[in-house]
Amino acid sequence: MQTIRYGGDYNPEQWPEEIWHEDVRLMREAGVNLVSLGIFNWGIIEPAPGEYDWTGLDKVIELLHDNGIGVDLGTPTSAPPSWLRRAHPEIRLVDFEGRAMASGSRHGVCPSHPVYNDACASIVEQLAARYGEHPAVQMWHLHNEYGWANAQCYCDESAAHFRRWLADKYGDVDALNEAWGTAFWGLTYRDFDQVEAPAIAPPGVNPALRLDWMRFSNDAHIANYRLQREIIAQHSEAPATTNFMVPNCKDMDYFRWAEHVDVVSNNHYLVAEREEHEIELAMSADLTRAVAGGPWMIMEHSTSAVNWQPRNIAKTPGELRRNSLAHVARGADGLMFFQWRASRAGSEKFHSAMLPHGGTDTEVWRDVVKLGNDLKQLSAVVGSDVTAEVSVLWDWESWWALELEWRPSVDLEFRERVEAYYGSLWKQHVTVDFAHPEADLGRYKAVIAPSSYLLTAAAAKNLRGYVEGGGHLLVSYFSGVVDEHDTVHPGAHASVLRETLGLWVEEFHPVHEGTRLALTSGGPLDGASGRIWSEHVRLDGAEAVAAFADGPDAGRPAVTKHRVGGGTAWYTATALDDATGLRELLAEVLDAAGVERPQGLPDGLEAVRRGPLSFLINHTGQDLHVPELRGTDALTGAAYADGVPVLAGEVVVLAHAGN
Amino acid sequence: MQTIRYGGDYNPEQWPEEIWHEDVRLMREAGVNLVSLGIFNWGIIEPAPGEYDWTGLDKVIELLHDNGIGVDLGTPTSAPPSWLRRAHPEIRLVDFEGRAMASGSRHGVCPSHPVYNDACASIVEQLAARYGEHPAVQMWHLHNEYGWANAQCYCDESAAHFRRWLADKYGDVDALNEAWGTAFWGLTYRDFDQVEAPAIAPPGVNPALRLDWMRFSNDAHIANYRLQREIIAQHSEAPATTNFMVPNCKDMDYFRWAEHVDVVSNNHYLVAEREEHEIELAMSADLTRAVAGGPWMIMEHSTSAVNWQPRNIAKTPGELRRNSLAHVARGADGLMFFQWRASRAGSEKFHSAMLPHGGTDTEVWRDVVKLGNDLKQLSAVVGSDVTAEVSVLWDWESWWALELEWRPSVDLEFRERVEAYYGSLWKQHVTVDFAHPEADLGRYKAVIAPSSYLLTAAAAKNLRGYVEGGGHLLVSYFSGVVDEHDTVHPGAHASVLRETLGLWVEEFHPVHEGTRLALTSGGPLDGASGRIWSEHVRLDGAEAVAAFADGPDAGRPAVTKHRVGGGTAWYTATALDDATGLRELLAEVLDAAGVERPQGLPDGLEAVRRGPLSFLINHTGQDLHVPELRGTDALTGAAYADGVPVLAGEVVVLAHAGN
Amino acid sequence: MQTIRYGGDYNPEQWPEEIWHEDVRLMREAGVNLVSLGIFNWGIIEPAPGEYDWTGLDKVIELLHDNGIGVDLGTPTSAPPSWLRRAHPEIRLVDFEGRAMASGSRHGVCPSHPVYNDACASIVEQLAARYGEHPAVQMWHLHNEYGWANAQCYCDESAAHFRRWLADKYGDVDALNEAWGTAFWGLTYRDFDQVEAPAIAPPGVNPALRLDWMRFSNDAHIANYRLQREIIAQHSEAPATTNFMVPNCKDMDYFRWAEHVDVVSNNHYLVAEREEHEIELAMSADLTRAVAGGPWMIMEHSTSAVNWQPRNIAKTPGELRRNSLAHVARGADGLMFFQWRASRAGSEKFHSAMLPHGGTDTEVWRDVVKLGNDLKQLSAVVGSDVTAEVSVLWDWESWWALELEWRPSVDLEFRERVEAYYGSLWKQHVTVDFAHPEADLGRYKAVIAPSSYLLTAAAAKNLRGYVEGGGHLLVSYFSGVVDEHDTVHPGAHASVLRETLGLWVEEFHPVHEGTRLALTSGGPLDGASGRIWSEHVRLDGAEAVAAFADGPDAGRPAVTKHRVGGGTAWYTATALDDATGLRELLAEVLDAAGVERPQGLPDGLEAVRRGPLSFLINHTGQDLHVPELRGTDALTGAAYADGVPVLAGEVVVLAHAGN
Repeated sequence: MQTIRYGGDYNPEQWPEEIWHEDVRLMREAGVNLVSLGIFNWGIIEPAPGEYDWTGLDKVIELLHDNGIGVDLGTPTSAPPSWLRRAHPEIRLVDFEGRAMASGSRHGVCPSHPVYNDACASIVEQLAARYGEHPAVQMWHLHNEYGWANAQCYCDESAAHFRRWLADKYGDVDALNEAWGTAFWGLTYRDFDQVEAPAIAPPGVNPALRLDWMRFSNDAHIANYRLQREIIAQHSEAPATTNFMVPNCKDMDYFRWAEHVDVVSNNHYLVAEREEHEIELAMSADLTRAVAGGPWMIMEHSTSAVNWQPRNIAKTPGELRRNSLAHVARGADGLMFFQWRASRAGSEKFHSAMLPHGGTDTEVWRDVVKLGNDLKQLSAVVGSDVTAEVSVLWDWESWWALELEWRPSVDLEFRERVEAYYGSLWKQHVTVDFAHPEADLGRYKAVIAPSSYLLTAAAAKNLRGYVEGGGHLLVSYFSGVVDEHDTVHPGAHASVLRETLGLWVEEFHPVHEGTRLALTSGGPLDGASGRIWSEHVRLDGAEAVAAFADGPDAGRPAVTKHRVGGGTAWYTATALDDATGLRELLAEVLDAAGVERPQGLPDGLEAVRRGPLSFLINHTGQDLHVPELRGTDALTGAAYADGVPVLAGEVVVLAHAGN
Repeated sequence: MQTIRYGGDYNPEQWPEEIWHEDVRLMREAGVNLVSLGIFNWGIIEPAPGEYDWTGLDKVIELLHDNGIGVDLGTPTSAPPSWLRRAHPEIRLVDFEGRAMASGSRHGVCPSHPVYNDACASIVEQLAARYGEHPAVQMWHLHNEYGWANAQCYCDESAAHFRRWLADKYGDVDALNEAWGTAFWGLTYRDFDQVEAPAIAPPGVNPALRLDWMRFSNDAHIANYRLQREIIAQHSEAPATTNFMVPNCKDMDYFRWAEHVDVVSNNHYLVAEREEHEIELAMSADLTRAVAGGPWMIMEHSTSAVNWQPRNIAKTPGELRRNSLAHVARGADGLMFFQWRASRAGSEKFHSAMLPHGGTDTEVWRDVVKLGNDLKQLSAVVGSDVTAEVSVLWDWESWWALELEWRPSVDLEFRERVEAYYGSLWKQHVTVDFAHPEADLGRYKAVIAPSSYLLTAAAAKNLRGYVEGGGHLLVSYFSGVVDEHDTVHPGAHASVLRETLGLWVEEFHPVHEGTRLALTSGGPLDGASGRIWSEHVRLDGAEAVAAFADGPDAGRPAVTKHRVGGGTAWYTATALDDATGLRELLAEVLDAAGVERPQGLPDGLEAVRRGPLSFLINHTGQDLHVPELRGTDALTGAAYADGVPVLAGEVVVLAHAGN
Repeated sequence: MQTIRYGGDYNPEQWPEEIWHEDVRLMREAGVNLVSLGIFNWGIIEPAPGEYDWTGLDKVIELLHDNGIGVDLGTPTSAPPSWLRRAHPEIRLVDFEGRAMASGSRHGVCPSHPVYNDACASIVEQLAARYGEHPAVQMWHLHNEYGWANAQCYCDESAAHFRRWLADKYGDVDALNEAWGTAFWGLTYRDFDQVEAPAIAPPGVNPALRLDWMRFSNDAHIANYRLQREIIAQHSEAPATTNFMVPNCKDMDYFRWAEHVDVVSNNHYLVAEREEHEIELAMSADLTRAVAGGPWMIMEHSTSAVNWQPRNIAKTPGELRRNSLAHVARGADGLMFFQWRASRAGSEKFHSAMLPHGGTDTEVWRDVVKLGNDLKQLSAVVGSDVTAEVSVLWDWESWWALELEWRPSVDLEFRERVEAYYGSLWKQHVTVDFAHPEADLGRYKAVIAPSSYLLTAAAAKNLRGYVEGGGHLLVSYFSGVVDEHDTVHPGAHASVLRETLGLWVEEFHPVHEGTRLALTSGGPLDGASGRIWSEHVRLDGAEAVAAFADGPDAGRPAVTKHRVGGGTAWYTATALDDATGLRELLAEVLDAAGVERPQGLPDGLEAVRRGPLSFLINHTGQDLHVPELRGTDALTGAAYADGVPVLAGEVVVLAHAGN
């Protein structure tokens, strides 16, 4: 049985050789079985063009291998060496404002530039040829965080690449003109060669151009990945990954990336200053699982504080453990940290590590050792999936389109709505999947569409089929507005969902900042309120579940319900408050859909079942007790015959008899 | 009798030909008699350099003409085609920070560039030659919104043009050195060729340079307009206009533009999130009338929400009607909307239109039809003017100068003061004109100078003559400080107004943000307060009307009065509060001047007389009644013998017996 | 006996010659004995390359000399002439974002550019040759405000200069790699030629690179100064200065500058909108004295408001006098203003002057005359020093390093902490010196280290020696973290101070914005609180003086004390509140150190002794009385036998019998 992968980024080049031996000894003490190596070492292994120095890397790989620690071998292409940057300033990434990125950091180069891509191919060829069959190499880690910091390059090479990409996509420039609606403002093209990168310009840049630019930029990074992947495949059978940043990288459409990697790995860092980290983390994990279509791994998270946020609040006691096991609960088969040993120099010296500056006499180190040992007891989950009855729709393209310039309201934010719905479901102990709007939804009892501004005709048809087939769908406002080119669907707003929702929208009524709209209903939504948005909803088959009591649409429907075929579709025309609005509306939908929620779970207790194990995570400061549960403690072996106690801040992993 | 022009921007190129017939049918239903055509169609009619395609435009013009709808024919120069931009990247507008504007939007090119100007001349020549004598063409609409989005270009061609402009203006470089005070910081020039565009630089750039740069940039746009205008004049006798953006374009001095257009047309959009739209709209209309020197037209406004503001709040029920008739009341002979039919694609798809996405079964469409029909009843006002006894001074150059860098306080804002005074007058039902400080003011009983920081010696003399001749003048603080070169008038501050105001200013005392200064007076100004500003006023003939009770000038004059010749000049040394300060001070001035205010008008009722009609606009949610008025309802024919009722949110247009 | 220098910047080129005679007459009336001349007149004296016009300058120098007024002769290099900028656009300063600075202001050129430096050398040679032996020239004023507005230039010449500077500093590129920790992110260099200027880049630029860039940029300005200084030395024996901006120029390390000037002169302007100007001014003066190592002079301050701040609040009655005498009290032997006569044109026309726009019938002028006369009575202090028993550590390099990107918390600000400690000491009437951490501290009873993030091993050893030798040291949190390359000292945080403080820091715990942490102690610190920061302190010899009562380190030490040798070292792990925390902790330290504080001084009375005089400055609105003091009033001759009265807002200078 495979064990959960455990370890972190290992950067031995920052330390003298004598430290390496101490490192490996301590790794064994902590149960480390995998380290990511060489992610930023291009300048070390190729100190001058075509001149290689493998001494250190050879030694470290042997040392790790001798100690039974596997290697996730990085390609160092996210940190091009000084000699390359200085000899070829033309590879510098040029940002939206036309500023070329200087060196001294990492990234900052154009993903489309042939000079850069040739250099990438060359170093990857060297690495793959040298270590491709080394038994220590268990995985390839291509590049690092594609899309981090300036995912788009606006240099001439990028623009030329964009034109080739467009020609590939559209074939004929008239197809592009049609798709982009260039008749507006006379932006028509006679030839693909006339298209330019959408760099800084007066406001009102063609949104279809911008949207395709987002797609292209995503693909430009994928092309660099593919270039590397194919070289490695010639030398090695080990699986390949690159670390995603779900959901904190808006620029990369990870649904598209997933098909190119063998293992989905993710970097997840808490946003230290926000509240309810556990919900944001759970959402990240669930969305990563959706991207992966099953188990995945954490490639980077932190043992405590990071260093790049405004106030890098450290993790509280037990939080490292709760975070880690929550990831496992939601599908992670590996838990890797950035980084093994805290750096003394450079930009990340204040980033926490598995081995802190203070050494082994520290709480962090003790937590790391304990976690490593506990993970060995949890091998039973490896490879198993999480089952959910509810799915939340997610689409990077809709995110991109919604937040282009010149929308009805700046308060329309993709993540804001998704997080609102996700959070309410989390608090009701409902485990959810995420899905793309065009995915097969048939296995879900309920589907939630918090923010589907861009919804293709195919997706709309998919949703209609889902409802007609007996599904329960809840759609939030400003959905189904445009197609894949950010073109308004023909006719009145939301027309593409008209038959499903039983309504159309005459006019949008975004409200002033801070405005709260009261709702009225004969039922549980009495007392609910809305923010951000109001709409003039025109019923065409649906019935009103709640109405606006004030605001621009006072007396008109605020929440509706429409029975179609065997299923039902709900719609809400405002950003419902969390305490009453979302909670009650979701309860109505889930009840109607027959989604069972665990009973008797206290607030703040996260309970997730994965394969044969249930994870009970107490996010509160009080000891909790779950009377309904029975089973054996997978970590301690204790038998719980009369409910399960979960102490304040602790985690219990319960093995079920049946599995 | 000419009718009020009614219609909007029409962009048929965005729609298939079958829609055009529906459009024209609906235009007739709505009473549309004029549409603006071809404003952004350069890429359509000249798809490649020197290659023209008139098919669509020919058809549309004939179709409109056949249906009795006139054409306001645009020159498409604000949207240069893709082929021009791509072949000539040197025409890109370069902004203050040195960033060249990319394509994908409109504008974004250098108004001084010969390549661009040649291309403009060529397409305008083609258009004018083809349609110059077409009977449908009732007006020419040159370019679009000159000065929108980066009114200044800092490229080398612009700098060269600026040097020619300076040589023309000053003749001799020593005259420039003298005017600009270049002895300061050793910024002297030996030759005009040494002058550079005032792009990004360390703070403290010579303000006289910046001020002439504003004038030059205004003139650079006028030059492009003139180029086009002269070509058209060779082919057509139809009047020409270009759409102004009064008062929301600070960069264009519309007093200078007005002499070049045959019809003053204005774009006015509500700032959706601010309060009291009706006052801002009235100010826009009155200022446009001052620019036009009589009747004018709305070239663009919106039926409901726009799409480019942070939160695009829609118009409330009746607001479209109230807005429209308020414009007519204040001098508009035409009401055009952007745009006829809502776009499905592009940047403005969420901008409201005469024909919304939802089609004809919508409130907006019904309002548009009703308005069109009502306008036909109001032809009596066409060509007539509005009479006012009070004038407010407005000078774009003073606005520019006041808001250059390194002023006594960031709270000194031109529009803030003008709007404060205008708003107080509006609430007191006083109809006002605007005037340039050097204009003949003899016909006004009272003149208000809310913000005349830059005041030439000639203007100061003009004001003195006005007061000596029996006029009543109210001047607000930080006025009369500099001349046309932003040079302080010789001697103590406000010296240029010393004889008029009977005082001088020893020192400026801007106050902390949020500070309120109490005033004391033996009269109605007791209880008033000030913000932003305090001054050490030294009386030299004037008497104190109110004094500061606290702050840096406690015990010193805050409001003064000075009798000169047959008139009186008031001065206030602080930003008076609206509720007591401005209201009471204005009341004193208006009473002294013998300005009669209508009696018995309820708050929130706007009443304006234009020619034979009076417009009564109820901006409140209550039904109102005006007991003093009598007359016939110009729209319904109803006779009001015992006062006039104006229902909540409604408008009554009253025809007076005598006219 | 030398008198206190009194005067200001004099810019006669802005005025016609007849005004010059009035100027000199009024200067004599005001007691002016020195003016700074020619600081921005390059364009006047060299109107074209190699063509000189000395007419005006010759005349003015003679006129001043004839009237007994000395000249501080400026080199005009901070305002390069238009012909130089236009002919050589390559000398434009390029900022961090790559934007080249346009002309129209001053500065804005690259300090490393040979073309600029050659032009500087040429004009300085001319000036020095012409006036080097003129008896009026009492001082040379090189350039103006080195480091003002873009202290760093990122152009290619600067980058090349940086590479030479690095080669000089490190000799061998491997030494640079080691010092900069370039193994991190593979940022290694094979050759100095591969290093680039740290312009805009993705976040996380190597902090050691940035830190050396700050040092280099400082040195680049010094090099321009040295170039000028050496030319002048060939022609003149008059002392040289350049005006510093202590402490408001973060970019210049004035400890390094001080060795190159003969006279330390400083520009000090109040931050008009902040509170407690007197404390910030006192800190500036004390730090300037530390830089100078004794007496110094004010080269620029203002008689009232400046013009470049958001709200330029004017000085209150008496503030000019209190400010001026406070500077003298803390070591100033000269008081110069910017500027003599208010300008009518240019960027600084709203900057106050000795002679305002309003002329001589103004309060400012009367204050200027009075001050000039009073200064003549205070010659006794010239050349004398101020004695302090307490020193506060200050290090520009620590400031730079602390505020680089990616620190634990944005609330870590160098000046915030220094000002907190300085302010508390000021309020307790403790006169302090400032010192560099590596300076000899032996003469101080107590040393305070408010913010010593960067602390070299040598400095740490210096502090240890100080405490072992009987000193009393108070160190605030986040000190002793990194060495001179921003590399974390080996081992746990604060390890370099471990033996001195008797503790180490396991983990940093920055707290949320606005969080207040309660402290508990058996003593005076009960009721104190902390902000910004908490830490996991591990005692290793020290004892806890107070503990955190809540927050991430509840129950752990918040304030500690450690006896080492003959002295004691305190440490605080949080930003103590002012009212209780800092006051009581400082009281404990000062008491233990035997620092005597004057008794019976009322709040708001600043009392400083310098040489034979004591300055008593009443910053309150109440008349105060100091019962303990005796002496003769140095200005009025009054004898105070029974305490000294200091009227509201006034200053008394007391001559002590003994001196």
